[in-house]
Amino acid sequence: MSDSISIRSLGSRVGETVRLLGWIRNHRSSGKIAFLIVRDGTGEVQVVVARHEVDEATWQTVTDRVAYECSVVVEGVVRADERSPSGVELTASRVEVLGDSSNDYPIQLKDAGVDFLLSKRHLWLRTSRQTAIMRIRDEVIKAIHDYFYDHDFVLVDTPILTGSIGESAGTLFETEYFDLGTAYLAQTGQLYVEAAAAALGKVYCFGPTFRAEKSKTRRHLTEFWMVEPEVAWLDSEGNMRLQEEFVTAIVGRVLERRLPELEVLERDTEPLRAVVPPFDRLSYAEAVEFLVSKGSEVTWGDDLGAEDEAILTEGRSKPLFVFDYPKSAKAFYMKENPEDPTTVKCNDLLAPEGYGEIIGGSQREDDLDKLTARIHEEGLPEEAYDWYLDLRRYGTFVHSGFGLGLERTVSWICGLPHLREAIAFPRMMSRLDP
Amino acid sequence: MSDSISIRSLGSRVGETVRLLGWIRNHRSSGKIAFLIVRDGTGEVQVVVARHEVDEATWQTVTDRVAYECSVVVEGVVRADERSPSGVELTASRVEVLGDSSNDYPIQLKDAGVDFLLSKRHLWLRTSRQTAIMRIRDEVIKAIHDYFYDHDFVLVDTPILTGSIGESAGTLFETEYFDLGTAYLAQTGQLYVEAAAAALGKVYCFGPTFRAEKSKTRRHLTEFWMVEPEVAWLDSEGNMRLQEEFVTAIVGRVLERRLPELEVLERDTEPLRAVVPPFDRLSYAEAVEFLVSKGSEVTWGDDLGAEDEAILTEGRSKPLFVFDYPKSAKAFYMKENPEDPTTVKCNDLLAPEGYGEIIGGSQREDDLDKLTARIHEEGLPEEAYDWYLDLRRYGTFVHSGFGLGLERTVSWICGLPHLREAIAFPRMMSRLDP
Repeated sequence: MSDSISIRSLGSRVGETVRLLGWIRNHRSSGKIAFLIVRDGTGEVQVVVARHEVDEATWQTVTDRVAYECSVVVEGVVRADERSPSGVELTASRVEVLGDSSNDYPIQLKDAGVDFLLSKRHLWLRTSRQTAIMRIRDEVIKAIHDYFYDHDFVLVDTPILTGSIGESAGTLFETEYFDLGTAYLAQTGQLYVEAAAAALGKVYCFGPTFRAEKSKTRRHLTEFWMVEPEVAWLDSEGNMRLQEEFVTAIVGRVLERRLPELEVLERDTEPLRAVVPPFDRLSYAEAVEFLVSKGSEVTWGDDLGAEDEAILTEGRSKPLFVFDYPKSAKAFYMKENPEDPTTVKCNDLLAPEGYGEIIGGSQREDDLDKLTARIHEEGLPEEAYDWYLDLRRYGTFVHSGFGLGLERTVSWICGLPHLREAIAFPRMMSRLDP
Repeated sequence: MSDSISIRSLGSRVGETVRLLGWIRNHRSSGKIAFLIVRDGTGEVQVVVARHEVDEATWQTVTDRVAYECSVVVEGVVRADERSPSGVELTASRVEVLGDSSNDYPIQLKDAGVDFLLSKRHLWLRTSRQTAIMRIRDEVIKAIHDYFYDHDFVLVDTPILTGSIGESAGTLFETEYFDLGTAYLAQTGQLYVEAAAAALGKVYCFGPTFRAEKSKTRRHLTEFWMVEPEVAWLDSEGNMRLQEEFVTAIVGRVLERRLPELEVLERDTEPLRAVVPPFDRLSYAEAVEFLVSKGSEVTWGDDLGAEDEAILTEGRSKPLFVFDYPKSAKAFYMKENPEDPTTVKCNDLLAPEGYGEIIGGSQREDDLDKLTARIHEEGLPEEAYDWYLDLRRYGTFVHSGFGLGLERTVSWICGLPHLREAIAFPRMMSRLDP
């Protein structure tokens, strides 16, 4: 089928006779003329079928046999058409159905509930809104790999199945692992990239992570992708600068290469264009003071919730760093702040427009005694962390890193209210299929 | 610490005074002079410390305090040195230990058994052989993403947790999924990329996959990464051409950019340079005939084992396609061969030099009735595959794809006898830590 061409490439073939393979997105016909919208994954195009210009088989096909999402081969001449988004349409000489569909195609143009659409996710993906999101997600991922490659980071894949545990016990998926007992599905690759940073300097992991959290908010998925860079000899201040540059590079890349898809999503791109360094910064203490002045009941020591984040970012056009949280609110591995041992050298990065936290980052505790004490305080099993403590026993080093949630970032850039559309096959408390 | 520079960049700084941060790979001293090998993840360099040129604190440090893998800051002047692999050495003016190590550092230069090394994998990764492998793995991954991006594929991440099952029931890891019963860890993303191909045309997934197989060979890992492209309107013949081009691009990229690392591994690059299209091809029937002529006891209908693969590739410098296997030996979703319904339109790709299968690919069965019959024949639960059958109910389409095993490919390119060194933290039947 190598003599067919993609719909995206039609613009350069005006006047030529071409052959397309694709699916019928929509169709209508009168007695003398029929219009088909054909999509092929690279774009869509209107196909005009005039009864007097085609043979009887083609006319029968377009009036009686085509149905939503049937697959077709179309031959015809490319015409310039200023009214169409793609700038072209096709005047058909032949249309043939390759794979039938039916009039009860599950996803019709009329509105369907989200739960129904999720149950038909394998078909819902074919709609123009969903393909636009998938292409932007792909661009974000490629921008991430390119950024790190160009800055001499090494991708180090960290294990999913692990005997150690990362952050929050109690929200771990478990599985039986041969004769070795229980394995857990990783919630983070961080402990492993810390080991890799001592070997390779600048590293990152990028893979799926899992939270068995009984949470039903629009900001949570059970299975989501996270990218986690880790850098030797980088402190908390440098870590925030890296985050600024990295997020700016991702947003800039989507604006540069995925404007048509942002347009399909009707995304206002003005706020995205404001994403340039330096980002705004508030210490946790300043943030709490501000929140209290706005009537929040947060008190020093609490972690900040989604509502607090919304108040903090209201009216801002850039992402906002909140840094140096209380030790009690954050994970055991964060470095104690030498200037205020009740806090740790860490930051969250909050997206503007109410999208909330997209990054959590920190300098890591590099002092063996302090880290060991924190593991005991948290009641974590020291044996499981013995290898991790080795990184402080043998040539400990200043290092920092962060985790950026892919679906949260894609949702923000695409302007999606819920994470579930930012991944092809979302997993949530109530959804494991398809 | 932004005023320090990387060891890799020393070559352009001859004559300058610089500051390095890194770890001590090796050290020795006499009464008047000491030599340190310092590594920082980007490379390694010899540091010369002359007693009469440094202060007493530095001399004490290099004679009494430095130990394998302690972390250090070194200041000194870059000198050209033709005898060194990097072309330079450093004449130190100051050496300070930042993080101590000890004389009982677990991995000494003397040989240690592989099982011990695996138990210290977080430290083993720091050795020059392991960092070379990790950099080549990184290059292979980047080459894969670049290839697909440049060829208009869209990356679609497929779920790990799934209610449906892929290939071999009985080798699946299971976990309890909220109130929805049992979830399985995916062995392949193929069924999902087939759905995505109907939405986006050319797609791929690239993620970890899991086999709870009680297998202890050097060719198996419990958790491994697989890249799986899927292409609408591509047949089996086109699929093999895609594989040829793709594998050639990956090997070529490593030869172009990772020669120093291949040298560290003492990899003979001649066989790799022979990897150019077209690859050799044998039908399964021809392969069996050849194997029997060589004394193998294989009979038509059997799948081919590692020994058979070794016989088939012996003496060849290029990868070898074996295509159109018996239906009985392969998975239910492969397309029945119209010219011989006892076989399916599929192929394996065998790497030369005894590395065996790195790809399994096929055209997919696009006929609803044939696919449904195969699901029944295999005793698979039809409900679980109902969404997959929708792809044949609504606009079925010719499509093909394949899965390339990342660790097998990295092992072949690096010349590693065992997959366990091709991933940072390998998971095997007997290993879940670190």
